[in-house]
Amino acid sequence: MTEKERITSQFGPQGPDGQAVPQPQENPAAEFEFAHPADGAELLESLPLEEQVEVITTLEPEDAAEFIAEMERHDRARLMKDLPPDYAADLLGQMSPDDAADILDDLDDAHQQRLLQRVEQEEALEIETLLTFDPDTAGGVMNTEVTVLDQNLTADQAIQLIRSAAEESEIPYYAYIVDEADHLIGVLSLRNLMLSRPGQRLRDVLGKQHLVYSYFDVDKEEVAQKLTHYNFLALPIVDREMRLLGVVTHDDVIDIIHEEASEDMLGMVGAGQDETTDTPWLQSVRMRLPWLLVNVLNSAVSAWVVHLFEGTITQMAILAALMPIVANQAGNSGQQSLAVIIRQLAMEAFDRKRAWLAVAREARIGLLNGIIVGILVMVGVSLLTHKIELAFVMSLALGVDMCIGNVAGASIPVVFKELGRDPAQASSIFLTALTDSAGFLTFLGLSSLLLF
Amino acid sequence: MTEKERITSQFGPQGPDGQAVPQPQENPAAEFEFAHPADGAELLESLPLEEQVEVITTLEPEDAAEFIAEMERHDRARLMKDLPPDYAADLLGQMSPDDAADILDDLDDAHQQRLLQRVEQEEALEIETLLTFDPDTAGGVMNTEVTVLDQNLTADQAIQLIRSAAEESEIPYYAYIVDEADHLIGVLSLRNLMLSRPGQRLRDVLGKQHLVYSYFDVDKEEVAQKLTHYNFLALPIVDREMRLLGVVTHDDVIDIIHEEASEDMLGMVGAGQDETTDTPWLQSVRMRLPWLLVNVLNSAVSAWVVHLFEGTITQMAILAALMPIVANQAGNSGQQSLAVIIRQLAMEAFDRKRAWLAVAREARIGLLNGIIVGILVMVGVSLLTHKIELAFVMSLALGVDMCIGNVAGASIPVVFKELGRDPAQASSIFLTALTDSAGFLTFLGLSSLLLF
Repeated sequence: MTEKERITSQFGPQGPDGQAVPQPQENPAAEFEFAHPADGAELLESLPLEEQVEVITTLEPEDAAEFIAEMERHDRARLMKDLPPDYAADLLGQMSPDDAADILDDLDDAHQQRLLQRVEQEEALEIETLLTFDPDTAGGVMNTEVTVLDQNLTADQAIQLIRSAAEESEIPYYAYIVDEADHLIGVLSLRNLMLSRPGQRLRDVLGKQHLVYSYFDVDKEEVAQKLTHYNFLALPIVDREMRLLGVVTHDDVIDIIHEEASEDMLGMVGAGQDETTDTPWLQSVRMRLPWLLVNVLNSAVSAWVVHLFEGTITQMAILAALMPIVANQAGNSGQQSLAVIIRQLAMEAFDRKRAWLAVAREARIGLLNGIIVGILVMVGVSLLTHKIELAFVMSLALGVDMCIGNVAGASIPVVFKELGRDPAQASSIFLTALTDSAGFLTFLGLSSLLLF
Repeated sequence: MTEKERITSQFGPQGPDGQAVPQPQENPAAEFEFAHPADGAELLESLPLEEQVEVITTLEPEDAAEFIAEMERHDRARLMKDLPPDYAADLLGQMSPDDAADILDDLDDAHQQRLLQRVEQEEALEIETLLTFDPDTAGGVMNTEVTVLDQNLTADQAIQLIRSAAEESEIPYYAYIVDEADHLIGVLSLRNLMLSRPGQRLRDVLGKQHLVYSYFDVDKEEVAQKLTHYNFLALPIVDREMRLLGVVTHDDVIDIIHEEASEDMLGMVGAGQDETTDTPWLQSVRMRLPWLLVNVLNSAVSAWVVHLFEGTITQMAILAALMPIVANQAGNSGQQSLAVIIRQLAMEAFDRKRAWLAVAREARIGLLNGIIVGILVMVGVSLLTHKIELAFVMSLALGVDMCIGNVAGASIPVVFKELGRDPAQASSIFLTALTDSAGFLTFLGLSSLLLF
């Protein structure tokens, strides 16, 4: 983005122009002829690899690039490896640099280099720059094709530039206004430009604008929260000197939100955070096994708690039958808290005070639910076993443990967050360890104190 | 939408025009003067109710309406109830009808009627129509302010209309082209219009377009999947006769995706699906309690399984200590499957074959993980207890149960889906019931068969 007056589309070929009229093409793969890139990608994914290669190499490179950019990550990487390197590099050159970088990111270094060497130098340089950004940050998801206008242009000059660029690319939602040193100083919509006096300079059109942007190195989830908060279509990404680097757009944000929801739900129980049903199954085994082993060690602790009370259990084996109910309830109640807090942390910027107030709220909920469930269980167990003391001990343990469960469930993500860890990762595993141990300890402990 | 040439903004005052230059206003609440509606809403939410009322009534109704539209549901409903009815109705009139309908949806019938009577008739009628749509469907989330153009207009007439409308509202992303009877026949972007021959009629500009739309009564999540699939900014919503009713836009879709992720995570463990940390705590108690009671009954089944083996446990109390490890592992492994499948169902349209293939994949993963964990546990338990047979029984039970856990975890959401139920709702609770019972049964059963 050195020529400031240059207008490039905010979107590459994968952009939102899908509702436009499709142009008839000479295309041997008839099914793909009028397919929207997203549909073409799905069609491709359903074919075996050799046929994918065959279809892609018979398509116009421009169309092929659009289809590949829309494919699922694993499928896409496999296909790119199987294409002739020169053709694959040609396709990368046809894509927007951020799509090309995303695809290369999934290939090993050798493959990356082999393809990059074959891409035109200017484009390759841009892709390589994008590859240096951490994929979990704003820089890692941004697009570099933005409409940049110099602050000294007049409104009518700006409109003229945008209009002439519309011949070959989509009309941008926002134009980004920069000063002589490429510093971002403001954002204007097409409407802002059209409502300005024709001769007015862009810097004057801006007036005292409250400029919203993100730094390139912030977490991509923070970018998603900001764009969602303001309902923007795109958010400018700048370096620490406020130089414009690119934009993150609404469709990137939808992907981020989807990914984040998956990461939280999968991470909670120790599955791979980017696992899908398309992940090779042995890879899933590798991703899940470590947490399953942590879970064994965790449950060994609660087993040890039970072991301490083996004498009590030998005398009264029904305790062994009832103790899982207590642990289970505490676990379930705690998981309800866990889910509420993880969602809060996902949807809002972290606010320590609000987070701990939420923990206090969960404690109240756990206590009241514990009392109610405790009373009902006391009645039930009394009727079934005719052991009033046993029923009392069990309902007492239930009340205490459900409250513990809720406090633990609500605190674990907050504590993880405070420690700079992912609040969801393995949270359910640690919660269960805690609720099992606490459940067994209170129930068996109270039993051995009060029943013998 | 009776006058077809009428141009209205696709977005109400809450639209994405937030990056525009703020206009200085005479505004007593200084903090709110230059606030973006989203920031203003957050500021408002942080105030006590009386102060919220005070600030809102001193703001220009137009600004007040924007702030309220951006507020959180619970806060917003409380505030609307506390405002003087005439002023509240005035604010509703200032909002886009879909925002007004969303707000009224959260009020009780008496309040709804009281306010609707005070809204101008034409607007009230539109709001009432929107209120008849199920809030979980396309009709329930769509906006009715769309740019509708008659197919007989020429391209230059269309551009002229859009431009003159830009004076008072945002420039639309797409214009929807209808025939004489208001049937949707196509969608054009501003770029499509600008690249057409000036005298060309819109129906000819459309050519053979592949029109993408949703019916008003489909699940809103389906709309979100479609818009996400095509990376569109908006999707037209039609009735069964293809008459255009409104559009669902990218920011609605972001809300739907957020909501859906919350619903899945909260539903899984039986919390209220729309619970947040702002939900009144007694309401949370009410929402969670039924599932906690289901959980008690479920765990009673696994307690009964243990009860059957009380004799075995009396002879060998260490079994009571080890059995939770087996059940826990099966549960954790199963929850990993559950999470993967629920996410798949959330992100893709349901495909029976793919779903059952995914279950088979989970069975393989469970089996291999079960074998590995089983072998490690066999070594560990042998070393700790010096009881080789016990260690063998435990590892056998672990292998079997982790496989059962994965099959159950993967099947439950698919079966729920096939039954027309929410695939996530209480899935974790039923899974735990299953893995606990199966875990106790296999471990205690194998023990009593092989160890005595």
